[in-house]
Parts: sequence; structure tokens; C-alpha cells
Amino acid sequence: MNYSSRYLEKAVEEIGNLPGIGKKTALRLALHLLKKEKRDVEVLSSSLLELKEKVIYCQSCGNLSDRTTCEICSNPHRDQSLVCVIEDIRDVMAIENTGQYKGIYHVLGGVISPMEGIGPSELNIDQLLNKSREGLVREIIFGLGTTMEGETTTFYLYKKLAGFDIKLSSIARGIAMGDQLEYADELTLARSIAQRVPYESSFHQNQNS
Amino acid sequence: MNYSSRYLEKAVEEIGNLPGIGKKTALRLALHLLKKEKRDVEVLSSSLLELKEKVIYCQSCGNLSDRTTCEICSNPHRDQSLVCVIEDIRDVMAIENTGQYKGIYHVLGGVISPMEGIGPSELNIDQLLNKSREGLVREIIFGLGTTMEGETTTFYLYKKLAGFDIKLSSIARGIAMGDQLEYADELTLARSIAQRVPYESSFHQNQNS
Repeated sequence: MNYSSRYLEKAVEEIGNLPGIGKKTALRLALHLLKKEKRDVEVLSSSLLELKEKVIYCQSCGNLSDRTTCEICSNPHRDQSLVCVIEDIRDVMAIENTGQYKGIYHVLGGVISPMEGIGPSELNIDQLLNKSREGLVREIIFGLGTTMEGETTTFYLYKKLAGFDIKLSSIARGIAMGDQLEYADELTLARSIAQRVPYESSFHQNQNS
Repeated sequence: MNYSSRYLEKAVEEIGNLPGIGKKTALRLALHLLKKEKRDVEVLSSSLLELKEKVIYCQSCGNLSDRTTCEICSNPHRDQSLVCVIEDIRDVMAIENTGQYKGIYHVLGGVISPMEGIGPSELNIDQLLNKSREGLVREIIFGLGTTMEGETTTFYLYKKLAGFDIKLSSIARGIAMGDQLEYADELTLARSIAQRVPYESSFHQNQNS
């Protein structure tokens, strides 16, 4: 590309380094910013800096927070002995949006993936083990994805945690609400039959959460 | 959405204000930036500010530039009497990338679009008329799109410029190189037959550029 301004070129290059944004999109975004008020660009620019400077990881659960202990971990109304283990902070948001879960979280920051060079030591696992060792945890819910890596990580954690006096459970897999059986994949359908639940328990699903 | 950090929320909101970027993508980008080095985020942030602060419009052609007169308009090796009128600076880049055009450009900054409230006065038209009036222009090539708005703008400029002693031309429309006739739309195909060119001239196409 032949940019008429090196500042434009630099901005396009930097924006284009973001994941999923190619050169053409980066140029479109840069031209959009050029048309905006200077104040708007300043706000965007400073919000990115603040994001990097001010957001920290909760020292207890690994969730993103503005404080050393996040709002969920420091909330006395949440059940601090019920821990849901999830992969990243987007999963926290997804579960929080349901408004149903009253326990706390433990964010691993990824899953074990030898292909990408991510082993257990790269993940936020020790803290979970420490917490378990201290007897603060009554139940751990595995909420990782059903990918090969997710299952591997769940199994690794299961092995590590099996020795403690902690109930280990996994979020239910099955047919999504509103889905029709004929469109469900075989694996999910087979699992939803194998792991069927008593009919009465299917309508007071929130009792333990 | 339930953000655990207001700085994260602010950054997601600001990134999500960019065109074509929704909340989910904005969150993905924000999380990506959180994982990057602080230095990288600073470079991105400052490149956006510099973009807005340092890039100006060439006072002669309306192209983006770091200087008051852009490199193309101040280049003595370009034919300053041959002007290609285009919609925006991406068109300049596209034509420059061909490496074939030796004239200069005139960037309108848009096309006439009553639907979007863009009239001739919103566009960089006066400067083109001034340049034409001063007798500096030998030929103007209309290089606007073939949309309704593009055609309207071209016709408007044609009416304004018809009184001057300037050759007015339009970039050729036709079957793209490498395209097969059977897949071309009827309008393009009909036009490419109506505006056929002598066979000999089709292979020294660069003589006048």
C-alpha cells in the first residue's frame, strides 16, 4: 500500500496488529477516526491506556478487576465455598448475565494445550489448589469447554482435587433450551440421554445455585 | 453485559463505537490488549492520537498528507495538468498501487447524496473549479463510482466544467481483466460493447497516462 502520510501508515499498521483486523479494515477505521472530533479520539486513546494501566487480576480468583480482590470474591452475599472453574473472564460475564449463580469463580486464564505450549504451570491452578487445601471450598463446578483441551484440563484438575474433601461437579451438557432434538448432534443427544435427570428436579433447577 | 472493571467497560464501549465493531469483538480486542505488553498498548494509543493531530488535508487536492501540499501535488515529475477526480483517499491508494498513472488527483471527500444530506457544498468541489479557472488543467478524468450517487456527482461536475477549455474523460468501464463474459452483468457487458475501442489501442493502453 501507498500511504500519503506516515502517521496514517503507522496508525493503520498498529490497528492492523489487532486480532481479526486486516489492513483494509484498519484503514477504514483510521479514516473513520480522522473524521471524528479530536476529543473522541483522545477519549478512545486514553481508554486504551487506562485499560492497560488500571485493570488488574483479582488475587483470589484471577478475574479482571479494578481492585486487588474483585467484587464477587469480596461480596458477603455470595457463597464463597462454591467455586466455578472457568477458562476466561468472558465465561464469568456469561454466567453472571444469567443472574442465577450465587457462588464465586476461579478463572484459569486458558486451558492446557500442548499444541500452543500451554501447560498446567501457565494456568492459574496453584491458587485453586491452595484454596482447596485451606478447606475453604465445599464444591467445585467444572465449567470448561467440551473441546479436547477443555476436557483434558478438567481431567487434570479432577486428578489434583480428588484427594480433598470437596464435591466435584460439572456443568450439565445436553440439549439447549428451545432446541429441537432432530437438529442436535449425536454426541450431545447421546450424553443428554445417558445423563438424564429425575423429571421433578428439572423444574427446580436453581435450588442449589 | 456485566463487566468486572469499569476501565474494561469504558474501553469496550469506546472500541465498540468504531464502525463495524460490535460489543463482542470490542471485548475480544480489549482482552487482547490486556495480554499485550504495556509498551505495545502505548504505541497503539499514541499512534491514534498522532493520526488525528498530525495528518492534514493537502490544500491543493484534498488528499491526506503530513504536509500542506502532498507529495503527489508537489512532485515535478507528475503531470500537474492531468487531474483524476475521485471520491476518497482509498481511491488514490488504489490508483497509485497500479504504478501507471502520472497525473495528480482531486479528492472530493464523498459524493452527492441527498439521502445522507451531502450536497455539492459539502464536497471539495470549489477548489477543483478554481484550479480549472486558472487554466492549470488540461484534462480531468472522472473516476467516481458507478453508483447512483457517483453518477450524479460526475454529471454535476460535468455541467460545471463543460464551459472550460478542458478535456473531460471518464475511466473506462468494461469487463475486468481475467473475467469471463458469461459471468459479467448485462449492464457492464452492454456498455463494454457500446464503448468498444480500436483493437490496436487496447495494447498500448498506458501511452497517455
